[in-house]
Amino acid sequence: MIKPDIVMELEPLFRPQSVAVIGATNNRAKWGYSTFFSLQNNYPGKLYPVNRQDDTILGCQAFPKVTDIPGPVDLVVVVVPPENVAKVMEDCVAKGVKAGVIISAGFAEIGEKGKTMQDEVIKIAKQGDIRLVGPNCMGMWSAAGNLPAFMFPMRIMPGPLALISQGGNIGGALVADAVARGIGFQQYVSCGCTADIQIEDYVEYLGYDDSVKVIMLYIEGLGESNRFVEKVKAVTAKKPVIAMKPGRTEAAIRAISSHSGTLSGSNLVYDSVFRKTGVIRTYTTTEMLDVAIGFLTQPLPKGKNVIITTPGGSYGVMCAEACALQGLNVIDLPEDAMETFNSMFPERWSHGNPVDPAGDRDFAQYLKAPEVLLDCPEVDAIIFMGFGSFSGLSSVFASGIDSNRAKQFEKLIKDFEGFARNAISVIDSGDLPGIRELIKSGLSYGYGLMASSTTSDLEGFFDMLAEALTSDKMMKSNFIRNLRNFFESMAQGSFNDAVGQQIIELIEPIIGALIDHWIQKYNKPVITTTFTETLSRISEEGHFPYPNAKRASNVLAKLVEYSEYL
Amino acid sequence: MIKPDIVMELEPLFRPQSVAVIGATNNRAKWGYSTFFSLQNNYPGKLYPVNRQDDTILGCQAFPKVTDIPGPVDLVVVVVPPENVAKVMEDCVAKGVKAGVIISAGFAEIGEKGKTMQDEVIKIAKQGDIRLVGPNCMGMWSAAGNLPAFMFPMRIMPGPLALISQGGNIGGALVADAVARGIGFQQYVSCGCTADIQIEDYVEYLGYDDSVKVIMLYIEGLGESNRFVEKVKAVTAKKPVIAMKPGRTEAAIRAISSHSGTLSGSNLVYDSVFRKTGVIRTYTTTEMLDVAIGFLTQPLPKGKNVIITTPGGSYGVMCAEACALQGLNVIDLPEDAMETFNSMFPERWSHGNPVDPAGDRDFAQYLKAPEVLLDCPEVDAIIFMGFGSFSGLSSVFASGIDSNRAKQFEKLIKDFEGFARNAISVIDSGDLPGIRELIKSGLSYGYGLMASSTTSDLEGFFDMLAEALTSDKMMKSNFIRNLRNFFESMAQGSFNDAVGQQIIELIEPIIGALIDHWIQKYNKPVITTTFTETLSRISEEGHFPYPNAKRASNVLAKLVEYSEYL
Repeated sequence: MIKPDIVMELEPLFRPQSVAVIGATNNRAKWGYSTFFSLQNNYPGKLYPVNRQDDTILGCQAFPKVTDIPGPVDLVVVVVPPENVAKVMEDCVAKGVKAGVIISAGFAEIGEKGKTMQDEVIKIAKQGDIRLVGPNCMGMWSAAGNLPAFMFPMRIMPGPLALISQGGNIGGALVADAVARGIGFQQYVSCGCTADIQIEDYVEYLGYDDSVKVIMLYIEGLGESNRFVEKVKAVTAKKPVIAMKPGRTEAAIRAISSHSGTLSGSNLVYDSVFRKTGVIRTYTTTEMLDVAIGFLTQPLPKGKNVIITTPGGSYGVMCAEACALQGLNVIDLPEDAMETFNSMFPERWSHGNPVDPAGDRDFAQYLKAPEVLLDCPEVDAIIFMGFGSFSGLSSVFASGIDSNRAKQFEKLIKDFEGFARNAISVIDSGDLPGIRELIKSGLSYGYGLMASSTTSDLEGFFDMLAEALTSDKMMKSNFIRNLRNFFESMAQGSFNDAVGQQIIELIEPIIGALIDHWIQKYNKPVITTTFTETLSRISEEGHFPYPNAKRASNVLAKLVEYSEYL
Repeated sequence: MIKPDIVMELEPLFRPQSVAVIGATNNRAKWGYSTFFSLQNNYPGKLYPVNRQDDTILGCQAFPKVTDIPGPVDLVVVVVPPENVAKVMEDCVAKGVKAGVIISAGFAEIGEKGKTMQDEVIKIAKQGDIRLVGPNCMGMWSAAGNLPAFMFPMRIMPGPLALISQGGNIGGALVADAVARGIGFQQYVSCGCTADIQIEDYVEYLGYDDSVKVIMLYIEGLGESNRFVEKVKAVTAKKPVIAMKPGRTEAAIRAISSHSGTLSGSNLVYDSVFRKTGVIRTYTTTEMLDVAIGFLTQPLPKGKNVIITTPGGSYGVMCAEACALQGLNVIDLPEDAMETFNSMFPERWSHGNPVDPAGDRDFAQYLKAPEVLLDCPEVDAIIFMGFGSFSGLSSVFASGIDSNRAKQFEKLIKDFEGFARNAISVIDSGDLPGIRELIKSGLSYGYGLMASSTTSDLEGFFDMLAEALTSDKMMKSNFIRNLRNFFESMAQGSFNDAVGQQIIELIEPIIGALIDHWIQKYNKPVITTTFTETLSRISEEGHFPYPNAKRASNVLAKLVEYSEYL
């Protein structure tokens, strides 16, 4: 495979051996201070502060000019007033610098005068084949280089996403939110006025980085849309590209011109460009991250037929509405499934899609429903609602076993003490079939405590669940450790609040493992929702529950859109 | 003022002196267990379990029938199979019960057979003037009665909201999310099939409860829309009513029929009903809570002219777009304001609306901008972006003063030790002018450490800020206590990580107090955004920052809509 030039050209940007910060300063009131500080505390390569006055910057030997630095300099980060950037660039050419990040602002975004200065900088840089990020940007991050070349320290971590953003603040928000959701980046570039390296150049480069699984773009204005189409199309064939592009209103178009100094262009043109290139368009940072995580955690659906399972009717109503508004098919329940559910659920169940057991207390039946549906060839995906409500239900149960009520459970505790002690030794033995058997009998036991029905017809279900809970992924996760902790509390022979909490913490990975098992087995999306706004995190096992039907159905619709494009 | 009958009729529901749970049980696998448990742990009045077999339920003396209870019974909560409810109701009539909550399901929602049973129950109840919630509901909460009559324990707290919901799960999600945002309810009723008391009856009642500030409705289908219009119109003249009404798609209409058993009705009819009655329509639980909190914390705007202030250009672009899409006027900057900002901000500032200082390090200037704008008569409201980013900026500063770098700050620490010791004694003296002076000099001092400009032109600003920070509200909040903790750490003469965290915790109430001050002074909405998805909570001082421009502008648009209706 012959890689295009851009792959080589951007290597010094993403994997520099040495970096100079031009405009580094000891003055805390300047960006040159926080920029140098950000790199100093993280970047492992050679780092040089450049400052015309001071001998040392934050304890490091400083140099008056980049040409005074003894060793080679791959990358410069520039934080000097805009009128000095051209001179700095001349020095960089003389020094043989390979790439630059121009944080300095006051270029194209302020009008003609700034645009002239910007053109001059680019002209000089071209003489030395220096590729430039910015100007008027917030900086960049590369996981491969452990390089947080930002204008201030930002919390970021390595991961499968890449983000190219014409807005530093939107980019920063996306990074912060992704980190809060438990997911990181291979590259993040705030590209500002995007004077030299174009968005499609970054995308082309990212197409060749196998550690990047999903590419996100915040675009204010493109240079040449034909070039974008040509280069990005080659990438969307390999991995999803998601874009956010404001500019549907006059108010935003005006704001764009004074912000990144780019021409917003017609919204219709962008819609057509994105459709042609298979770029998935989103409208908020939350939506962009939702869709990115959907691509990371779900298989692509074969069609748009969806069935909803819900532990609550009104959730089902909201989800059916959201799916239909997204253009998904809320299909009729296949007849076989209808018959199966007639024998599983109380008479009052919904008898349709959404599948709602209508307050059935036998929760195991609800957890059996998805496989019945995934097994139907006409079902392309399911939305499984109430991921978090199982924690809710377990807290109801837990609230019944707090210390005040312990005496009601005296016999239970006595029975369970021996079980718990044995469980600990089984876990410690590391014997996989033994642990699987233990989990199975633990599930039957726990279920028996809560359920009105017998467990005899659930044998197969518990087998499957025990297998899902002892997959490689689960054995490497914290689940087994948390399970052991739970048994340790139980072995002490007393129910208390901690036990309640421990039960709640065990429920989520159990549901997560089940969902993972279904996805693997049927290769169909199983999107889940929690019902509360509390921020979801991607689990150790790789599952992400969405907070509501609207967001879940939107993600499914985008998976369908990309799948149809391919 | 003559109150309608409904006010008297619903008193026994919301303030019962005694409650019987019919179908209470010791069987943990039944809803009758968790229902009784929920009440037993909270309701302070007389509580009786009714169970045909057992002598005691969860330790309380049980009665075979409601007529066997010695004292009067105001309210019954019914959790027996649907076919037994009519018989139970006959006993209730005999006993002289005044109101009932029918949790039992299997009525109108399952079709003809259920509808017949439901009609029978209502007919019997009417003979004894018993008013009924449900059937097929999750229960209800009344703060005045401290009455969590739910089918399972739910975290809820008293507050200014009221919620009437034809979906128990949607209602539960709204309650959980509201509690997580720090806000509670006077009443929450899950009204299920809504067979007797209609949604407009509840609304009429809530109109007369002065502790209810905002009414929220989740509607699947109304009985008579004319009756709704007539009764609700009288209430929207007094306080805002916000509704969610799915049923724009066939998929949802079908789901509604099998859920609450109501007729969804035409979406266009609902739009017209809501417009006629001044009910604000929303589409998700998140939006409903956003708008409710907007009504609780902001004054109504006089028009739709908005100016955006943003510390980041791309946020400004997104916000201008969101406002314009919401039908708000993103007006041109008044000329006076333009001139003022020309002298306040660096040359590269945005020169328009959104007002963006474009990376100005002098944050105090950004905090001065809103008053310049609020003072302009053509400005109806502002959206102030970056509420949370000030915490972000302070963490940048804090990251510069961690223990590793303490020696750079040696002189600073020495200087500040004396100041901090004196500050503690001023705070302990409780002398208001002294505390105000202290805060003012503390602000100048802290600002001087970070800022490049001098503080001389900020005298007035710091005066105002010190006054805002010593308002009655702030003096009663934790702010002063946290400030004292900060000075205690400083008086120990060492910068450490705790100090960084303490600074961050002081920033939010400072911005919150400023915003409160502006709102009071100008009586115009000042809506803020944080930029991160992390769940916002309403602050002790009563401020709620929204996570993004879309949600903030939507709330402002709804305030405009209600204000135009009035």
